Amino acid sequence: MEKTIRLEFSEIEPVLEAALLKHGFGNERASLCASLFAETSLDGVYSHGLNRFPVFLQMVEKGIVRPGNEPSMVHSLNNFETWDGNLGPGNLNAWACMGRAIELARESGMGVVSLRNTNHWMRGGTYGLQAARAGCIGICMTNTKPNMPPWGGRETKVGNNPFIISIPKEPYPFLLDMAMSQFSYGKMEVLEQNGEKLPFAGGFDTDLQLTDDPAAIMESELALPMGYWKGSGLAVLIDLLVSILSGGQTTNEIGQREPEYGLSQLFIAFDLQQLTSENNRTRIIREVTGSLLETKAIDDGGEVFYPGQRSWLRRQENRQKGIPVERDLWALIRKATWS
Amino acid sequence: MEKTIRLEFSEIEPVLEAALLKHGFGNERASLCASLFAETSLDGVYSHGLNRFPVFLQMVEKGIVRPGNEPSMVHSLNNFETWDGNLGPGNLNAWACMGRAIELARESGMGVVSLRNTNHWMRGGTYGLQAARAGCIGICMTNTKPNMPPWGGRETKVGNNPFIISIPKEPYPFLLDMAMSQFSYGKMEVLEQNGEKLPFAGGFDTDLQLTDDPAAIMESELALPMGYWKGSGLAVLIDLLVSILSGGQTTNEIGQREPEYGLSQLFIAFDLQQLTSENNRTRIIREVTGSLLETKAIDDGGEVFYPGQRSWLRRQENRQKGIPVERDLWALIRKATWS
Repeated sequence: MEKTIRLEFSEIEPVLEAALLKHGFGNERASLCASLFAETSLDGVYSHGLNRFPVFLQMVEKGIVRPGNEPSMVHSLNNFETWDGNLGPGNLNAWACMGRAIELARESGMGVVSLRNTNHWMRGGTYGLQAARAGCIGICMTNTKPNMPPWGGRETKVGNNPFIISIPKEPYPFLLDMAMSQFSYGKMEVLEQNGEKLPFAGGFDTDLQLTDDPAAIMESELALPMGYWKGSGLAVLIDLLVSILSGGQTTNEIGQREPEYGLSQLFIAFDLQQLTSENNRTRIIREVTGSLLETKAIDDGGEVFYPGQRSWLRRQENRQKGIPVERDLWALIRKATWS
Repeated sequence: MEKTIRLEFSEIEPVLEAALLKHGFGNERASLCASLFAETSLDGVYSHGLNRFPVFLQMVEKGIVRPGNEPSMVHSLNNFETWDGNLGPGNLNAWACMGRAIELARESGMGVVSLRNTNHWMRGGTYGLQAARAGCIGICMTNTKPNMPPWGGRETKVGNNPFIISIPKEPYPFLLDMAMSQFSYGKMEVLEQNGEKLPFAGGFDTDLQLTDDPAAIMESELALPMGYWKGSGLAVLIDLLVSILSGGQTTNEIGQREPEYGLSQLFIAFDLQQLTSENNRTRIIREVTGSLLETKAIDDGGEVFYPGQRSWLRRQENRQKGIPVERDLWALIRKATWS
């Protein structure tokens, strides 16, 4: 029996929704939350889609994620607003705040919303796609618990603080969705289970030497920031931006309690129709896409992709063949609809 | 005779100013431009300070940089404005546009200015410092000519597109000022002259293998993006952001003509006094600075720095001992005041 099955989006979404209804989510919130998880797996970001759904339900069961709590506005000045997430579901809070940034952009060209006291937003790219669908450039960022050493250090003091930029383009936007670690622990676990090495050094071993052995990095918990000092520096500045602009917790404060909760985030939207001309947008998208796609590849038969292209290709494949889901995981999720 | 001399800021600035006056700059513009160059060397960013001054004058002599041209506004919507740089001096244009973003932030909390048709801004951190001195968070970015291969490619199709974030802090702000290449060609040249290797792989050799040999990378012109695919992706998104929001040229378009001119940039300012509380700012700066400075170092006797700290240390040292300037370079610059 195959370990992985393939399911349609329309088979997955109602099951997640039923599980959320059993966990105290209202009708509309259960439906939106379920569709965000399912769309994340549709785009191939399994680690933050269905794979994470059981952990998400546990966080609800433990009272860390509070399904009924909606964000509330704490400060407003023209097209800048600060919201409190009231420890509600991280993806619903982030969706609401990017939605609000888009509304502000509709009213006045651009909008910025800072958010404190929220939870893990799952796939950050979700809110980039949300902005792009509304015809807006989207920029968003979040801090996390400490999970990476700053450059030059051997203690996990900075977060891998994801950073997202999206630019509207048909049929799928340009989308950058990156954490500040060179490799995620999720990626390392998969390689370690398959007995494989990382393609490049991805952290330090317990002797503080750089290594491409995922098991050694998982043991030391010293994953390398992307670009060494550069990713470390950007992680620190993202932490400062989101916490200062929201008045929320820093990575260091989040790390003083287990599990990870009470994060700080920032959402920015620029309404392209009001701020830019269609001629210029068309020219620029053609220029950038064209120059990347025609670049000679470094490997024979290789290809150069533009940011977001792989997610789009994966989405098309998963729409055609179904979304791959581990059989055991699917059984576990279905069980949550009965509890 | 020592190759390097040490000069006071007050000895350097009037000489640069005199050279600029000889090159068609008006009084005020010569004074500002000179002080920006001198301050860049004061902070230890020699490559974009005095070391670049003779090349800057050459660009003026060739008519690429037009000293009398000031930026003009082409579009305005509330606190978002687009300006045309009219191919004026890149540092004066950038100073004017960050200044305008700060004014907009004073009026309404935040301000965003996009700039097209400008020239190299020299040290990007200059405009981060400018915002921080005004009590604003500063974010700015620029595109460049193509000088880096996109991830997976073997042709220089993307720019190393610098990205700057600053956060006010006394006596010197948090300051991230990074290009998207792992190492600059300036850094590689210095190491190559000293017969040294890079600390990590910094690009590909002509056989398309990763190498830490600066000479091999200078030959292939295939410098590695920081964080491999991550820096490559961020470089592409920065190019899209600055060109779409300003209506200006993309990296690919800039690369179609020599030398490098007609760049696109973006300047963002958030006025902290209007948007945030002093108590929160104090707490957050203490948290972030404290947690970094107390991190155990990976090397015995090593230290962990917060972003901007090294520039601040260098500024103090150079104020005390004088700014190091190569004797030959200084003779060359002095000569430009007679021409």
